[in-house]
Amino acid sequence: MAKDKKTKADKPGKKKRAKIRLAAAAPVTKSKAISPLAPAEFPALPRIQGVEFAAVEAGVRYKNRKDVMLIRLAPGTAMAGVFTRSSTRSACVRDCQAKLALRAPADNGAAIIVNSGNSNAFTGKLGDQAVEAVTAAVATALDLPPSRVFSSSTGVIGEPLPHDRITARIPALVHDLSDRAIEMAARAMMTTDTFPKGAAATIDGDGGAIHIAGIAKGSGMIAPDMATMLVYIFTDARISPAALQKMLARQTGPTFNSITVDSDTSTSDTVLLAATGKSPAAPVTGPVAKAFEAALGQVMHDLALQVVRDGEGATKLVEVRVTGAAAADDAARVAFSIANSPLVKTAIAGQDPNWGRIVAAIGKSGASADRDRLTIRFGDILVARNGWRAPDYNEAAAAAYMQNPELVFAIDLGLGRAKRSVFTCDLTARYVEINADYRS
Amino acid sequence: MAKDKKTKADKPGKKKRAKIRLAAAAPVTKSKAISPLAPAEFPALPRIQGVEFAAVEAGVRYKNRKDVMLIRLAPGTAMAGVFTRSSTRSACVRDCQAKLALRAPADNGAAIIVNSGNSNAFTGKLGDQAVEAVTAAVATALDLPPSRVFSSSTGVIGEPLPHDRITARIPALVHDLSDRAIEMAARAMMTTDTFPKGAAATIDGDGGAIHIAGIAKGSGMIAPDMATMLVYIFTDARISPAALQKMLARQTGPTFNSITVDSDTSTSDTVLLAATGKSPAAPVTGPVAKAFEAALGQVMHDLALQVVRDGEGATKLVEVRVTGAAAADDAARVAFSIANSPLVKTAIAGQDPNWGRIVAAIGKSGASADRDRLTIRFGDILVARNGWRAPDYNEAAAAAYMQNPELVFAIDLGLGRAKRSVFTCDLTARYVEINADYRS
Repeated sequence: MAKDKKTKADKPGKKKRAKIRLAAAAPVTKSKAISPLAPAEFPALPRIQGVEFAAVEAGVRYKNRKDVMLIRLAPGTAMAGVFTRSSTRSACVRDCQAKLALRAPADNGAAIIVNSGNSNAFTGKLGDQAVEAVTAAVATALDLPPSRVFSSSTGVIGEPLPHDRITARIPALVHDLSDRAIEMAARAMMTTDTFPKGAAATIDGDGGAIHIAGIAKGSGMIAPDMATMLVYIFTDARISPAALQKMLARQTGPTFNSITVDSDTSTSDTVLLAATGKSPAAPVTGPVAKAFEAALGQVMHDLALQVVRDGEGATKLVEVRVTGAAAADDAARVAFSIANSPLVKTAIAGQDPNWGRIVAAIGKSGASADRDRLTIRFGDILVARNGWRAPDYNEAAAAAYMQNPELVFAIDLGLGRAKRSVFTCDLTARYVEINADYRS
Repeated sequence: MAKDKKTKADKPGKKKRAKIRLAAAAPVTKSKAISPLAPAEFPALPRIQGVEFAAVEAGVRYKNRKDVMLIRLAPGTAMAGVFTRSSTRSACVRDCQAKLALRAPADNGAAIIVNSGNSNAFTGKLGDQAVEAVTAAVATALDLPPSRVFSSSTGVIGEPLPHDRITARIPALVHDLSDRAIEMAARAMMTTDTFPKGAAATIDGDGGAIHIAGIAKGSGMIAPDMATMLVYIFTDARISPAALQKMLARQTGPTFNSITVDSDTSTSDTVLLAATGKSPAAPVTGPVAKAFEAALGQVMHDLALQVVRDGEGATKLVEVRVTGAAAADDAARVAFSIANSPLVKTAIAGQDPNWGRIVAAIGKSGASADRDRLTIRFGDILVARNGWRAPDYNEAAAAAYMQNPELVFAIDLGLGRAKRSVFTCDLTARYVEINADYRS
């Protein structure tokens, strides 16, 4: 799947996950089964100088697991962020947006605190008060201005956040901070996720290496913009907040805004990118800036795909690759119409090469499409061309292709040069079970 | 559910369906279970003078069941139609649209031929040829101009229609025509439907009664515009094609374009309305026209709701009633965003009053919404107000409400006066099973 785009950063995920670590990942939800699409193991991420992590059990909602994590960022860290555009976005998201807009000086460092179990969304003024209480407590504990403390919450919507359970554990979090606890932090923010998600890349800067490492959570309610998704990416690059923000925004379109599990958009989506500036390399400019942005994009792509791989109930990872559209917007409409179609997604679950449902999804998309110019391929198999099934289409071969855990549906509209790839997963009975049960 | 709008036409559906007739409805798909939301029995529809029906086994795809039906309409019948707007709509739909646009004189009567098992969509030139072959054969058999023979096909997309199996059975169809076979016709077009759908209304015209009777098929791939839905409505009213078309188009918005099972839009959606003019009542004008259109709207509303009641795997019928929107478009966006949300629909399946997912669906809709003005009610239960859970909200009471087979989610946006009601059903594991299996 998009193998041409893969780099070193993907490789750690291909190692074998030791059985004993699978067991350790368990106590997340009632359903312990790890997604069949999960990478073999959590990758070995480089340590990013100036970033420390800690996680504790605070009992926000879950019992017997770590559910709050804290990240401390060294003085001099530049921050950037992108967020859900939901009109009902959470108090944390609004607070992060307001604080980033302040463009406060980086001298004092920064911090990020994240809890799972409760999203603190649609909790009215109490929600705003909870964010203030938590971030103020972190600010005091770490001697930071409150404007440099960012927070995220993920979990049930509409329940008041028991913020005193979080603030009570801040001394323990501060005590435990370590530059080796990134996987523990990734685990603490899991909700219906079945595995923790991480990705990394390293490039050569002028005078030394520049490292990027990121962690993500997300499984259900995944759709642009963006997903029930929390993503934290760290780099030791020396770079200005403005340059960092531009790169993050540019790379979000083809990565986190190109995945969909269930077309549902979260109230909490947050991507924060922190650059500590601790690399010995010179400030990022010129060709290094280009290489850095490409590496950042790869890390984001890898994390985005891991989110789809952990799609609730997913058994297949599918790239919907639309080409030949008259306009970029048409390409996106067609790609998302297919990727969000329950009928397409259930056919994938049933390993049925039901390309007629793809035709229907193209038809309903509202994009310019001409039946007689459409070409549809499943992997290398030509399925349909010129408004009808390809003459030598072989249903048995297509059915065999559908057995693969990773699929590419390539649709050429034959109208122009615009294109868009979107990544999705299948819709299984397990998805329904997970979501009919989530709160009970 | 919208009880204020119900009329006599609904009542037949409330009678008890005799056990023996349930059994008779069976041989449609592998799953024989009739939707728990089905009306008790097929209603006793009035006979519409000038309309005859027949159905036969042609073996288009299914075995041992009637799969083709023919309708003969008497000379003088005015025709109107609305269709899917899919850009990949079927050959039949394109043919119907072209023929209606001709505005051919009604003198010679008309006919409608419908098959299930194969939708003849995305079948290229062969598809057009199949439509021509079938409609020409009917025209010859009934001595009609081909421009007055309309056709529909429903079933699998992209397979060539074995039209010779249909044309071979036309003599038998013509032989069997009867004004008492409307239920048999409704059954012959079923695919994944678990019950045949019918509705009727009668009004007083000037000088006699005017009757309306309609039948529908639809179960999955139901979304505006419009649904995998075939609907045929008959009336003995004396009315011009132009007036009929206007009324049909107006009444489609709040009925067939306000239902969604799975947000998927079909390539075959067709609603044909035929007025035979055989009523002794005077031509429909003035206040009678108003009453006639209202009755037509009620029949359409009833049929539309029956389609949702037969939503694949459905166990709940849900009205999403949005009020207080700033604009009509906003009301529709919010209503469909909620009604199509997999997370909302799985929560309904789980009987979980997970109103947080409604908030998220409002947020992602793109419509103007202000968290602090939102009011959400489940039936009479006030759930949320002013940006937060209502102070005396009782989760146990809401959970008890969710046990009902019919639910109303009322959302007031508090911004204006625009409103929209949309009808949907829950998303169950059974939906996934049906659609993962459909072709196998």
